[in-house]
Amino acid sequence: MAKKMKYVYSFGGGKAEGRTDMKNLLGGKGANLAEMANLGLPVPPGFTITTDVCTYFMTHDAKYPPALKGEVEAAVKKMESVIGINYGDPKDPLLVSCRSGARQSMPGMMETVLNIGLTTKTIPGLIKKTGDERFVYDAYRRLITMYSDVVMEKAAGIEPEHDRGIRKQLEKLMNKKKKEVGAKSDVDLSAADLKDLCEQYKKKVKQALGKPFPDDAMDQLWGGIGAVFQSWNGKRAVDYRVIEGIPHEWGTATNVQCMVFGNMGDTSATGVAFTRNPATGVDEFYGEWLPNAQGEDVVAGIRTPNPLNEDTRPDGTHHLPSLETAMPSVYKQLVGIRNKLESHYHDMQDIEFTIQDGRLWMLQTRTGKRNGPAAVRMAVDMVKQKGWKIRKEEAIARVRPDQLDELLHPIIDPDAEKKVKPIAKGLPAGPGGASGQIVFSADDAVACAEKGRKVILVREETNPEDVTGMRAAEAILTARGGMTSHAALVARGWGKCCVVGAGDISVEGKSMIVAGKTYKEGTMITLNGTKGFVYEGKLPTISGANDKYFADFMKMCDQIRKLGVRTNADTPEDARKALEFGAEGIGLFRTEHMFYGEGSEKPLFALRKMILSSTEDERRKALKELYPHVKKDIKATLDAMNGKPVTVRLLDPPLHEFVPDSTEERQKLCKAIGISMKEFKARASVLHETNPMMGHRGVRLGVTYPEVSEMQVRAILEAAAELRKSKKTPLPEIMIPVLGEAKEFANQKEIIDRVAEEVRKKHKMKASQLPFLVGTMIEIPRACLKAAEIADMAEFFSFGTNDLTQMTFGYSRDDVGGFVAEYIEKGILPSDPFNILDQTGVGEMVQIGIERGRSARPKLKVGICGEHGGEPSSVEFCHRVGMNYVSCSPYRVPIARLAAAQAVVKEKM
Amino acid sequence: MAKKMKYVYSFGGGKAEGRTDMKNLLGGKGANLAEMANLGLPVPPGFTITTDVCTYFMTHDAKYPPALKGEVEAAVKKMESVIGINYGDPKDPLLVSCRSGARQSMPGMMETVLNIGLTTKTIPGLIKKTGDERFVYDAYRRLITMYSDVVMEKAAGIEPEHDRGIRKQLEKLMNKKKKEVGAKSDVDLSAADLKDLCEQYKKKVKQALGKPFPDDAMDQLWGGIGAVFQSWNGKRAVDYRVIEGIPHEWGTATNVQCMVFGNMGDTSATGVAFTRNPATGVDEFYGEWLPNAQGEDVVAGIRTPNPLNEDTRPDGTHHLPSLETAMPSVYKQLVGIRNKLESHYHDMQDIEFTIQDGRLWMLQTRTGKRNGPAAVRMAVDMVKQKGWKIRKEEAIARVRPDQLDELLHPIIDPDAEKKVKPIAKGLPAGPGGASGQIVFSADDAVACAEKGRKVILVREETNPEDVTGMRAAEAILTARGGMTSHAALVARGWGKCCVVGAGDISVEGKSMIVAGKTYKEGTMITLNGTKGFVYEGKLPTISGANDKYFADFMKMCDQIRKLGVRTNADTPEDARKALEFGAEGIGLFRTEHMFYGEGSEKPLFALRKMILSSTEDERRKALKELYPHVKKDIKATLDAMNGKPVTVRLLDPPLHEFVPDSTEERQKLCKAIGISMKEFKARASVLHETNPMMGHRGVRLGVTYPEVSEMQVRAILEAAAELRKSKKTPLPEIMIPVLGEAKEFANQKEIIDRVAEEVRKKHKMKASQLPFLVGTMIEIPRACLKAAEIADMAEFFSFGTNDLTQMTFGYSRDDVGGFVAEYIEKGILPSDPFNILDQTGVGEMVQIGIERGRSARPKLKVGICGEHGGEPSSVEFCHRVGMNYVSCSPYRVPIARLAAAQAVVKEKM
Repeated sequence: MAKKMKYVYSFGGGKAEGRTDMKNLLGGKGANLAEMANLGLPVPPGFTITTDVCTYFMTHDAKYPPALKGEVEAAVKKMESVIGINYGDPKDPLLVSCRSGARQSMPGMMETVLNIGLTTKTIPGLIKKTGDERFVYDAYRRLITMYSDVVMEKAAGIEPEHDRGIRKQLEKLMNKKKKEVGAKSDVDLSAADLKDLCEQYKKKVKQALGKPFPDDAMDQLWGGIGAVFQSWNGKRAVDYRVIEGIPHEWGTATNVQCMVFGNMGDTSATGVAFTRNPATGVDEFYGEWLPNAQGEDVVAGIRTPNPLNEDTRPDGTHHLPSLETAMPSVYKQLVGIRNKLESHYHDMQDIEFTIQDGRLWMLQTRTGKRNGPAAVRMAVDMVKQKGWKIRKEEAIARVRPDQLDELLHPIIDPDAEKKVKPIAKGLPAGPGGASGQIVFSADDAVACAEKGRKVILVREETNPEDVTGMRAAEAILTARGGMTSHAALVARGWGKCCVVGAGDISVEGKSMIVAGKTYKEGTMITLNGTKGFVYEGKLPTISGANDKYFADFMKMCDQIRKLGVRTNADTPEDARKALEFGAEGIGLFRTEHMFYGEGSEKPLFALRKMILSSTEDERRKALKELYPHVKKDIKATLDAMNGKPVTVRLLDPPLHEFVPDSTEERQKLCKAIGISMKEFKARASVLHETNPMMGHRGVRLGVTYPEVSEMQVRAILEAAAELRKSKKTPLPEIMIPVLGEAKEFANQKEIIDRVAEEVRKKHKMKASQLPFLVGTMIEIPRACLKAAEIADMAEFFSFGTNDLTQMTFGYSRDDVGGFVAEYIEKGILPSDPFNILDQTGVGEMVQIGIERGRSARPKLKVGICGEHGGEPSSVEFCHRVGMNYVSCSPYRVPIARLAAAQAVVKEKM
Repeated sequence: MAKKMKYVYSFGGGKAEGRTDMKNLLGGKGANLAEMANLGLPVPPGFTITTDVCTYFMTHDAKYPPALKGEVEAAVKKMESVIGINYGDPKDPLLVSCRSGARQSMPGMMETVLNIGLTTKTIPGLIKKTGDERFVYDAYRRLITMYSDVVMEKAAGIEPEHDRGIRKQLEKLMNKKKKEVGAKSDVDLSAADLKDLCEQYKKKVKQALGKPFPDDAMDQLWGGIGAVFQSWNGKRAVDYRVIEGIPHEWGTATNVQCMVFGNMGDTSATGVAFTRNPATGVDEFYGEWLPNAQGEDVVAGIRTPNPLNEDTRPDGTHHLPSLETAMPSVYKQLVGIRNKLESHYHDMQDIEFTIQDGRLWMLQTRTGKRNGPAAVRMAVDMVKQKGWKIRKEEAIARVRPDQLDELLHPIIDPDAEKKVKPIAKGLPAGPGGASGQIVFSADDAVACAEKGRKVILVREETNPEDVTGMRAAEAILTARGGMTSHAALVARGWGKCCVVGAGDISVEGKSMIVAGKTYKEGTMITLNGTKGFVYEGKLPTISGANDKYFADFMKMCDQIRKLGVRTNADTPEDARKALEFGAEGIGLFRTEHMFYGEGSEKPLFALRKMILSSTEDERRKALKELYPHVKKDIKATLDAMNGKPVTVRLLDPPLHEFVPDSTEERQKLCKAIGISMKEFKARASVLHETNPMMGHRGVRLGVTYPEVSEMQVRAILEAAAELRKSKKTPLPEIMIPVLGEAKEFANQKEIIDRVAEEVRKKHKMKASQLPFLVGTMIEIPRACLKAAEIADMAEFFSFGTNDLTQMTFGYSRDDVGGFVAEYIEKGILPSDPFNILDQTGVGEMVQIGIERGRSARPKLKVGICGEHGGEPSSVEFCHRVGMNYVSCSPYRVPIARLAAAQAVVKEKM
C-alpha cells in the first residue's frame, strides 16, 4: 500500500523541490535551504536525503531503500549542472559537504563531513584551478581527519581503547611534524609539510582501522551520507533527545551541498550580517566581513572584522574597508537579498554569506537574535511597515517577556561581563546589574547611602528589620534563601537588583568569605541579578531604553490580552509606581508591610504591644493605638488607586515575626506594657514556632483574635467610607488569608458583616453606597479541595501560589536552597517551582480550586497573587485555566501584560 | 389522597399499639415504652401522640388535626381502664406526665410536665388515698411551678424581662416562706406551709401572666401536650438540632403516661439495675434501690443506696437490706423481668423501676453502658450464650475500640478522679493514668528512676535527646506540641501515659508554674493521659484485665476483618511487643530512631560525623563507621519478624536534628572530625532550617547524598542475605520517604538496583533468593497527584498521613497547639486532624493517590503508617478506600484489629 516515495529533494539555481513547510521530511536545515533557493537566492546547490531514509536505515540494518542510489546519482547530476563543474572531475572537481539536519535543531549532536570529493585524482586539478597547493592539502588533511574519525571509526562502530581514537593518533602525527619543522601553529606548515602529512595520515588510517582511506569520490560521498544517518543513534544524540524529549523515531535528514570557499584569495570573502541592528532595532543593514577568510574566522575574533557598510561603521574602524566600498557590486547584490529576505520573512534575519572568486553565495538565513530594546522597537516598527502584513499578535509573539526586564533595569554591559569570571553564583532574584561597596548591616547601608556611597548589602539572609537598609542599598546579596525568600520578594517589589542563596558565600562578622578569600567591608563588587552572578570589582552598566516604543508596544499587548493585570503593592508609593507600569488594580495589599521600613516605628511599636498582650483587654488597647496608622495607610492606597480595585489581605504572618530581637527594644516594650523581662520572655516563647510557615498565622489569627480582624476590617471600611464622602471611588476587596476550611470563612464573614453594618450606620450609608467584596486567598491544598463550600460564601479567590507550592511540594521556600539547585541539575525538577509554576502538580490543585469554586459560584472572580503572577509561562497557565487576572510586583507588570497577550496569541495558534 | 391517619398509640396492660420499629412516628421514648409493654412488662399505662401531630401543629399555627381530640379522649379511657383509677376522679385521681420524645435523643432540650391532673377537686381525694398531705401539696407546688413556666409562659411565647420569669418569681416566694418559718431546705416545710405556698403561687401566676392557673384536669392535660410540641421549636432545641444535624421537619412525639410514686411509704421504693455487672461483665444481676424514695434520690447520692441482692452486695453495706430480702416477691418478679429483657434484647440492659405500694412498675430499659473489660467479656460470653443467636459481627460492634485501651494500660480509679479537679488540661497523647514526682530534665528522670523513684518528666517540649529520660519516667507532660509531637509519638509507641500541649503550664528552670502557683521538683502529680488532665497529688490507679476474654475477643475480630494490621516499630523490642499484640508485620521501621535512646552513643556519634562532613569522602568514611550499627539493628528486627514483612524507611528527618546542642558534645565531635569550633558552627549553620518540616529531608537527602541511601540499602539487603543463609525468611520492603515527584523515585531506584546486584553477587544469590520490595511513602500532596507515574515504578504505597495532614492543612504538628483547641471549641474543626483523619480533605488526597496509583498498577499494595492507622474512624476509612493494611504503634494494634473488624460489620449494615 506504500505509495511511491521520493527520497531525494534537490535545491539550487533559484529553485528547489522542497519547501519550508516540509521540515518533518527534510529537517530544519534542508527545508531552510529549499526555502532560500525558492526565493531565488544564490544558494550553493545540493540535495537533501529525507528523514524517511534515516528511519529505513535504522530499521533495515544500515541498508538504504533500493531506489535511493538512482535518486542520489540524479541529484548529483542536477547539482553539477547548476554549479557548472562536476563531482570527481580530475580537471575542475566539485567538492561537497554532508551535514545532518533533524526536524528540531540538535546543535553539535550529530556529524558533519566537509571537503568530500578530494582524491589523488582530483587534487591536481584543484591545485591547478586555485593555484594554491597549500590550501588544497590543508583541505585534504581535514577531510582525512574528519572522515576517518566520523565515517570509518564512529559510524562503523569501532570502539578504540581509552584515548586511542584515530583522531588522537592523527593529531600526534601533526604535532610531531610541527616539532620537526619548528612550526608554532598549523598555519606555519607549508604545502610540502601538509602533503607529507597527508601521506602519513593515510598510512596510519590503514594501519589503525584495517582499511585504506577511500580514494574514490563516490565512495567518499556514500560514506559521508551513511555516517550522518548513523550519528542519529550516537550516544550524544540519543542522550540529548532523552533530555529534550525528541522522539527517536523522527530521524535526521542528510544534506549534501557544494562546498564554496571564501579563502581563495582577495576576490573571496566571508561575512555575517543582520538585516536590522540587533542591539537597537534600527532599520539599518548591519554586519561584518573578512576578505580571504573562512566563516569561522569572522566569529573567532582573531582578526578584527571589517564593517559591512559606511552607515554602520563603528568607531575605531576607519582603517578597515567596508564591503560597500571594497566590493560594491557584491554589496549591492547583498542589499537586494537583505530586502528580499525581510519582505519575505517579515522579520529581522541573521545571514551568513561567502564570496568565492567574486561570486556571492548565501549559506544561511535565520531569524536573528536581538536584545530587549531592539525586540520591542522592531515589533512596533514592523507592524507599521508599509506593505508588510504583520498582525499585532505576530509582533507581540516575537518579544520574549524577560526581554522587557532589559528596558526596566540597568544591566551589566555584556561586553565587559564576557571578560570576567563570577566569584560566586546564586539565584537571580532581582533582575538588572549593580555595583557597590559591600556592607553587612542595614544600619551601615543607611549610613553609607546618606554619605552618598553606593553599597551592596550582604547578609546571611534578610528579615523585616533589614528593610530600610535594603532600600538604601544599590543591590542585595544573601547567602541563603530561595526565589521567594524575604530578600527576593522585597527586592523584586522595588525593582532592585538582588542575588539570593549564593551558597558559596559565608558571612562572618564584617567579612564575606568566598572560596577561602576574605572580602572586607568596603570592597567593591558587582551583581548580575538577571543571571545570579557575583563579580569582584566594578563592571560598567548600561541602561535599557524606556521610550515611546515601549509604550506603543505595551498598548498593543493591552489590546490583545484578556487577563487583567494587577500589582502586589504594600504602600501608596508602590501603588503609584505600578500604575505607571499599567497595573489595573492591586491584587495584594499586605497590611502588615506597613510595619517595615521608614517611619514605621510608631505603628510597629503598637503592633508589638498588641502581639505581646496576654488578655483581650490589653490587646484591644494596643489595637486602638494601631488603628489610625492602619487606616491612614489603607486610605492613601485606596485613594491612589481611585476607581481601581484594591485587594487588602488581612494579617497573614505568624506574630512572633514581629517580636524584637534587640535587648533595648525589648526593654522599651516591657516598660510600655508594664511587664517584667521574665514575663516578656515567657510571652515571646509562647509565640515561638518550629515551622512558622505552617503555624498560627493568617485566618487562624483572625479566628483566635477576632478583635484583630475587626480592627483591620474597620480600618478598611472607614477609609472607604471617608473617601466616598469626598466623592472618590474606593473599591476595596477584603481578603482572608491561609484559609483551609469554609467554616473559617464563615467565622470571619460574621465579623466583617457586623463591622460593615456599624460603619454604614455611623456614616448613614446604604449598602449600595459602600460597595466592597469579601473573598479569600487559596493557598492551602485543602482549600482547593473545599473550594465549592468556600465559594458558596466567598466573592473572589486569589491563588497564593507561593504557599500553595510550599504545601503541595512540602518545600519551605526559605530552605529549598539546600537541594533545589541539585534537583534541577539532576533533571528531577525542570526549574525552581517557586519561580515557574509547577503546572501539572501545583497547577492541578489550582484547577481543582477553580472548577469546584465555579461549580458553586459560576461568576467567581479568580486571580493569582503569588510571585508566579509575573512569570510568563505561569501567566499563560493562568490565562488557560480561566483566571480573571494576575497580580505581580510593580516591575513585573509589563512582563505580565506581554505574557497575557502572548497567551491569547498562543491559544489561537 | 391522604389515608386515614392514626394520631394516638396506647400502651400498657401487657400490650401496645406501637412497636419498637416505629421510632420515626412515636419517637425513641414512645417506641421503647410500646416495646416494653408488648413484652408484657408492667409499664405504667399511657399513650403516645405521634410526630405527625407535631408537624401538623407547627405548620397549622399551633392547631391540632380535628381527629386528635377524640383519639386522646379514647386513649385516656384506655389508660384508666388498665390502671384501674380515673383521670380527674375526685375520689381516687389518676395523675399523668407529659414528656417529649424525638426520633433521636435530645437530652434536656425539650420540656416535661409532671403531676398533671392535680386540681382543687382532686387534691382531697389524693390526700385521703395516700394519707400524706405534705406529699400532695409538694406535688401540687411542683406542678404549678413547672406548668406556669413551661405551658403558660414559654409555650405561650411570653418573654419576661431579664430575670423576671415566673419560675424566678415563684422561687422568691418559696425563699420568703422558708425565711418566715426558719426552714433550711424545702424538706423542712410542713404540709401547711406548702399548702399556703400553693395559694400564693396561684395568685402570683394570675397576677404575672394575666391568667389563672387552670383548675380543670383536661385543660391541664391539653396544656401539657401543647407545651411539649411547642418546645420542639424552642431556642435550645433548635440550636441543638443545628449542631447535631437533626432535621427540623422530624418533630417530636408527646408521651402521656400515668404517674407512679416510689415515695408513698415503706411499701414503695425505687431503683436502678444492670442485667449484668457493668464493671466486670460478670453475668450477675447488679443494682441499687431505696425504700420510700423517688428516682432521683438513688442517683443523687444523698442517701447510700441499698444493694439489690445478696450475691452482689458490696463491702461495707451489711447494715443495708437488699431488695431480695426486703421485698422477696417483688425481687423475684424483677429477676424474671431481667431474664426476659436479656433474652429479648440479647444485650445487657440498664433498667429503672418503681414500686408503688408493693406493685412493681418498669419505667425504662435501655442498653447499659459498660467499661472496657466488661464490654469485652460480655461480647465473648454472649456469642457463646445458649439459646441466643448473637453473631460475632454484632458482638464486635458492641465494644468501642477506645475501650480496649482500658485493658492495655492502668487507668486512674474513676471514683477517686471524680472527687478532684484538674489543675491543667492538655491533649490526651498517651492513654492511661500515672503518678510520680515531677522532674525537669531527662538526666534527672534517669537518675531518679535508678534510685527507684517514680517520676513524671515535665518539659516545654521534648526532643530526641530526651528519649532516655522519657523511657525512665512513668509519664510525660509537655507544655507545647500536638497529638503527633515528638513526645506524643514516642510515648504512644511505648504505651506510656502522656499529656502534651498543656498550654496553661509554663516551665522555668526546675519549676512548673500553673495559674500563678509554683510546683517545684519532686512535687507529686497524676496524669490522666486518656483525657489529658493533670492533677496535683497521687491518685490511685487500677489496672485493666488482660485476660483470656481479651484473647478470645481479638480472635473474633481477626476472623472478620479484611484489613491487615501492622505495627510501627523502631527496635527489635518494639517488634516483639507488637507481635504479642497481634501485629502481622512492620509497616514502618524508622532507621533513624536507632540513634535515640540507650546504647546509642556510638552510632549517634558516627551519624553526627556523617552529617557534619563537608565532602563526599568525609561522609563516606563516617558512613562506613555507621554501617555495622545500622545493619545489626535491621537484622535483629527482620529476624524478630521472621516471615512477616518489614517496611524499612530510609533516612527521613532533616539532618540538623542530630547536631548536638551541648558544648562538650560539640568539642568531642570537632576533635573526631578534626575541625575547629568555628568551622563546626559554620557547617551546623548551613544545616539550620526555618521550616525543617518542609526542608532538606527524606528522599531529598537521598538524592543529594546518594551515598547515604546506598549505605542504608546495603545494610538492609546484607542483613536479609545473611538471614537467608541461616534459613530465615526476612521480607524487607524498602520505603522511600517524602516523595513528591516520580523522578526522585527513579533516582533512588537506580541506587537500590545497583546495590542489590552487588549484594547478590557477593552472596552468589539469584534475585528470587533475595526477595524484597521497593515502594514509597505518600505524604506530600503532590505525590498523591503524581501517583500514577510513581506507581509505574513503586511496588507499594504507604500513606504517611501525619505529614499529609500537615501539608494539606498547612498545619505544623508542632505548632497547632496555638489554635487547634480553639478551632474545635468554635466548631471550625470537628476534631484534631492529627488525631482523627480529616476524611473529606486529607482523605480525598489519599483517595486520589490510591485511584491514580492503582490505575497504573492495579495490584499496588497500599497501607497507612501515620498515627491515624490506630484511630478507629480512620481505620474504617482505610478499609473503605481499599487499603491493604494499616500500621500503628504496638499498643494500638488491638484497637486497629477491632476497628478493622467493625469496618466490615458496618459495611454489611
